Amino acid sequence: MSRIDGRTPEQLRPVTIERGWSKHAEGSVLISFGDTKVFCTASVTEGVPRWRKGSGEGWVTAEYSMLPRSTNTRGDREAVRGKIGGRTHEISRLIGRSLRAVIDCKALGENTIVLDCDVLQADGGTRTAAITGAYVALADAVAWAQGKKIVKAGRKPLTDTVAAISVGIVDGTPLLDLCYEEDVRAETDMNVVCTGDGRFVEVQGTAEGAPFDRKELGALLDLATAGCVDLAALQRDALVRTQDA
Amino acid sequence: MSRIDGRTPEQLRPVTIERGWSKHAEGSVLISFGDTKVFCTASVTEGVPRWRKGSGEGWVTAEYSMLPRSTNTRGDREAVRGKIGGRTHEISRLIGRSLRAVIDCKALGENTIVLDCDVLQADGGTRTAAITGAYVALADAVAWAQGKKIVKAGRKPLTDTVAAISVGIVDGTPLLDLCYEEDVRAETDMNVVCTGDGRFVEVQGTAEGAPFDRKELGALLDLATAGCVDLAALQRDALVRTQDA
Amino acid sequence: MSRIDGRTPEQLRPVTIERGWSKHAEGSVLISFGDTKVFCTASVTEGVPRWRKGSGEGWVTAEYSMLPRSTNTRGDREAVRGKIGGRTHEISRLIGRSLRAVIDCKALGENTIVLDCDVLQADGGTRTAAITGAYVALADAVAWAQGKKIVKAGRKPLTDTVAAISVGIVDGTPLLDLCYEEDVRAETDMNVVCTGDGRFVEVQGTAEGAPFDRKELGALLDLATAGCVDLAALQRDALVRTQDA
Amino acid sequence: MSRIDGRTPEQLRPVTIERGWSKHAEGSVLISFGDTKVFCTASVTEGVPRWRKGSGEGWVTAEYSMLPRSTNTRGDREAVRGKIGGRTHEISRLIGRSLRAVIDCKALGENTIVLDCDVLQADGGTRTAAITGAYVALADAVAWAQGKKIVKAGRKPLTDTVAAISVGIVDGTPLLDLCYEEDVRAETDMNVVCTGDGRFVEVQGTAEGAPFDRKELGALLDLATAGCVDLAALQRDALVRTQDA
Amino acid sequence: MSRIDGRTPEQLRPVTIERGWSKHAEGSVLISFGDTKVFCTASVTEGVPRWRKGSGEGWVTAEYSMLPRSTNTRGDREAVRGKIGGRTHEISRLIGRSLRAVIDCKALGENTIVLDCDVLQADGGTRTAAITGAYVALADAVAWAQGKKIVKAGRKPLTDTVAAISVGIVDGTPLLDLCYEEDVRAETDMNVVCTGDGRFVEVQGTAEGAPFDRKELGALLDLATAGCVDLAALQRDALVRTQDA
Amino acid sequence: MSRIDGRTPEQLRPVTIERGWSKHAEGSVLISFGDTKVFCTASVTEGVPRWRKGSGEGWVTAEYSMLPRSTNTRGDREAVRGKIGGRTHEISRLIGRSLRAVIDCKALGENTIVLDCDVLQADGGTRTAAITGAYVALADAVAWAQGKKIVKAGRKPLTDTVAAISVGIVDGTPLLDLCYEEDVRAETDMNVVCTGDGRFVEVQGTAEGAPFDRKELGALLDLATAGCVDLAALQRDALVRTQDA
Repeated sequence: MSRIDGRTPEQLRPVTIERGWSKHAEGSVLISFGDTKVFCTASVTEGVPRWRKGSGEGWVTAEYSMLPRSTNTRGDREAVRGKIGGRTHEISRLIGRSLRAVIDCKALGENTIVLDCDVLQADGGTRTAAITGAYVALADAVAWAQGKKIVKAGRKPLTDTVAAISVGIVDGTPLLDLCYEEDVRAETDMNVVCTGDGRFVEVQGTAEGAPFDRKELGALLDLATAGCVDLAALQRDALVRTQDA
Repeated sequence: MSRIDGRTPEQLRPVTIERGWSKHAEGSVLISFGDTKVFCTASVTEGVPRWRKGSGEGWVTAEYSMLPRSTNTRGDREAVRGKIGGRTHEISRLIGRSLRAVIDCKALGENTIVLDCDVLQADGGTRTAAITGAYVALADAVAWAQGKKIVKAGRKPLTDTVAAISVGIVDGTPLLDLCYEEDVRAETDMNVVCTGDGRFVEVQGTAEGAPFDRKELGALLDLATAGCVDLAALQRDALVRTQDA
Repeated sequence: MSRIDGRTPEQLRPVTIERGWSKHAEGSVLISFGDTKVFCTASVTEGVPRWRKGSGEGWVTAEYSMLPRSTNTRGDREAVRGKIGGRTHEISRLIGRSLRAVIDCKALGENTIVLDCDVLQADGGTRTAAITGAYVALADAVAWAQGKKIVKAGRKPLTDTVAAISVGIVDGTPLLDLCYEEDVRAETDMNVVCTGDGRFVEVQGTAEGAPFDRKELGALLDLATAGCVDLAALQRDALVRTQDA
Repeated sequence: MSRIDGRTPEQLRPVTIERGWSKHAEGSVLISFGDTKVFCTASVTEGVPRWRKGSGEGWVTAEYSMLPRSTNTRGDREAVRGKIGGRTHEISRLIGRSLRAVIDCKALGENTIVLDCDVLQADGGTRTAAITGAYVALADAVAWAQGKKIVKAGRKPLTDTVAAISVGIVDGTPLLDLCYEEDVRAETDMNVVCTGDGRFVEVQGTAEGAPFDRKELGALLDLATAGCVDLAALQRDALVRTQDA
Repeated sequence: MSRIDGRTPEQLRPVTIERGWSKHAEGSVLISFGDTKVFCTASVTEGVPRWRKGSGEGWVTAEYSMLPRSTNTRGDREAVRGKIGGRTHEISRLIGRSLRAVIDCKALGENTIVLDCDVLQADGGTRTAAITGAYVALADAVAWAQGKKIVKAGRKPLTDTVAAISVGIVDGTPLLDLCYEEDVRAETDMNVVCTGDGRFVEVQGTAEGAPFDRKELGALLDLATAGCVDLAALQRDALVRTQDA
Repeated sequence: MSRIDGRTPEQLRPVTIERGWSKHAEGSVLISFGDTKVFCTASVTEGVPRWRKGSGEGWVTAEYSMLPRSTNTRGDREAVRGKIGGRTHEISRLIGRSLRAVIDCKALGENTIVLDCDVLQADGGTRTAAITGAYVALADAVAWAQGKKIVKAGRKPLTDTVAAISVGIVDGTPLLDLCYEEDVRAETDMNVVCTGDGRFVEVQGTAEGAPFDRKELGALLDLATAGCVDLAALQRDALVRTQDA
């Protein structure tokens, strides 16, 4: 019994990762998970926020945002409303934590990298696409900083890769990489962030309908872990491609 | 090998639940998990937000806040800064989702219940104490609404109990109900929200240091599930006590 | 002819002052005037705001706030609205001025004490309870700072005690310490702040209905002065009690 | 022993009240107390704020503001900072309450009058000049509304006149109508709002230095009451002058 | 003597207009003027803002924004700062006015079209690219609304085409379509918005260095008018291409 | 065929420029163009904004605002709404740019002059009156700074005069200096800022109805250039009058 778009339960949507999408940013990626498209840029600045000065350690942070018409119905611009909504805050924090999990702040030195993840088109899984794409932009930015000697010679700020995927239970079946239509029907929804070695950085499961039990949780983690392995391979492929900017 | 405060790894801090702490609110609780104290009130109003009007369904939402000096160092008041921080937003949303998991919105009818969870003193686990206390305030508010016939006769808006606890891995050992000092040292930190029948409403695990593997995740879920069973019993005890307001 | 709650016109409500209500703050008090309960904390930090640096003088300031459901009907949270209302601003400034009236800023040295006064339950007279309680928290904080040598040896930043009470004319009769029900019916409402020696720090009288004349003003000041003498005695009693935190 | 500007202790500064200073507003006044100049407009609109609809009663409110360079040193514009300061809030509320003391809201009917008091030049006593000038603008606006039959025939929304003056103790001497230089040196500072019949609408006394006693309070009230009588006469004179707009 | 990028003074950069860049929006375009790339979406909603209800007329408005890293140095996100800057406001208003110049609001009926113009990469001329691209998105949205009978049969809300270009004087030479590097060196900078028939909708010239005279103004208008003719042809070409979304 | 107020098409309204309208500001002017009245103050402070420190150059900036009842219908106060509107932003920026066009920032040295332009009464042309008046206040402030040796001896920060006027096409006729009633009926509206030598600093033309052609643009520029010559003469006259403050 197949899914809306004909996929099997454990199948990712087509994923594309285009590097060098910005002539200004030190790292930039346009990532798509099916119809979900997120533009990720990594900006390097020397120096760190005030509370971190003198620590010898760097900082990596992220800001997530959806363009007003990235969704089916136009949403208000947060800049116009004058405040950032709770969901935006929550996702920005999640992306930042996920990337810091693979950063050695000491090796980075007192430099800051900001990841901007702007959703151009949304069809479910925007936060996981953002993390997966931001990692690639971050890797390019770190390489740039190493090339410019902003990161000291011999230091390796990146300790692993990191990727993320959504999973959920729809009509009793655990599914990988939900599109929007599946997402709204899911009884349970989980976002999982894994490092390249298959361990967990974040596990966020939410019962949208009935609570879920330990067995269901296990099935979802199995799917997500496998999905993240596939994404890690796609990230590696993207990073070895020669880049023509 | 015992913990900072002499507890065993699987032991809760002393938990107290005092109902009727406000003469105004329809439900109110002062809950403490050790030195963490959260004041929870439930406010019932007839009617629902605009986007829900005419649906025949009610709404339950929550707002979390820390008093400026609930922590060791005074924090700025969010009202003075003029914006709510990401962490506050994130926790308010978590509390709301957790409580809605045990509410039958149809049975509630077009009524709104707002849970205010104000942290008077913080020593780790404020969000889980807030959920656990807010449930009791919610139960009192629902009973009040039933008594006033605001909820129609024979309808049962509450479908189960809900409680939450934090768990984490400190120096390689999985621990239940972290106090602040343990929390800052934890490599992995997880908040788990369970219904009274032991199923999950939310599972939020975060690697603060090294990523965690499936086995560690399992050990933490075991601890949390058992902790929530104990909290559910304490909630039931509190709710059967005669209340003198 | 007695009052709603059986008091005589010149009688205070039962007043309780519990010190040491926070394990974090340098001074903390839960004060109640009948059903009005205000939680006051005093936070000491070394250093002063920028505009006062290098003056050799300290600073004392206050922030007042009502929890959303401290009143009969839930009010919006000011942090959520994104701005502080006029009444909140006005009361915060009043508390700050009242406390500075008994502080020798030179003796305090370049240290700052912030008083947070959060109303947990309101039944009239929240601002006067806040001032009266905040004084006790301030006294504890000053003593703490002297003990820690943050205030130089031999210096006495506190020059007197300070307390406050509301008075008003209800149905033609001047009354001391109005509860909410009396307050809404008062033709004239006055808040009076006195030092321990019976002199005035603030006198704020407002005609809510008809204007008031000099004789009525005199009667209200008589009541308030006597009330403040009683409060000063209660403050002294509270401060000599051994504190077990 | 005379004052900075040669006045006796009980003497007002030269006061001028120019009506018809705006071609748009229903009432408008440029008032000066010496070098303090406040531009007051009264705007009439039919209808009342939502919370007052259907009551049959009108509403009068006020907004006070200082132009950035009305003072010796330029202050930030509150619109640019994005929030209104506590002092501005406090004074706006004081002006509104003072004017409502002489308004019969029933007689006004469901109409709203907003008083805007913008300080063009400040030299002490801006809030009392604002109240005194706003009353005259209000009287013109009420007359306009009566002429337009917006207020029903035979109804008299204005019940009395209202004026305000500052008093203070400088070097031990009680003085009327402090200019800025006196104000900063005052030990005690009081703003008094009186109706035309000499009764009090507001009495706000603040000890800036040492607390003040009952006798000093009495001397200040004597000065202020006499000053308000003079201001009431000036208001009446201004209102009987033919106006050429 | 050629320009930085080898163009002649009266030559546009390569312009591309890709329609159908969003699966959600009723009209969408990715436009580039050389390295300047702006993503424009047009969102149709039935109904109009409150102030226009019952007029029978529609409304067209625009919001412009730059992604934080669309420029060489990362800028703060306006949503994070909590306020929209003056430049953003100014450009959003310019785009809205320009498009309304070719809209017959009566023919549109009580419908609203919002144009979102988000700059993905900036290299000078972002506002003129935004107007030029937004016109194409608007045309698609109008056609969609006609197809859906949201616009009544036989009505033609679009009265003409509209395009915009920047011109400026660099080292004494008038140039068309300045890139960023030319823009910062320009003594005079002008943005010109023309309808398809070559008339002006907006002319905004600014002396960045020395003031400019009538002859220079004339030379700039000549260049701009010709440039807009070319852009109008490109818009027409884009709109006749078959679109595969 | 004459205009609403009897003027010929090329005639200015009566213009008055009163200097020394503030005892505090270093330069101050009350300017009127007919019933439009704008109060302009120039405030000098030593030092420059952070981004300009160490450059040896000064800075001139402006803030424009309308009093709430400067217009026929009372507008909300921007300080109360908590944000500055697009129109206010746009005009503030225009005034700043216009004045900087006649300032030699090097000659000014590291000093800042802020022009505040507050509209007391509006009847069309407020931005052009503001620029014209602000120039005079600026000239007084520069002279003051030269007198105080804040500007070094022999340096001349002012390089020319600057004035501004509105022009527009009403019923097919180009008119100078539109009053409000003409402004709302204008098909095309243009604001022109000229230096004393008749060259352009800003030209901002907008089609309110039908687009305008090159010939109409020429006619409007002719009118505006002549108007600015008259204004420059009035500015010179005002500046040579002896000032009694």
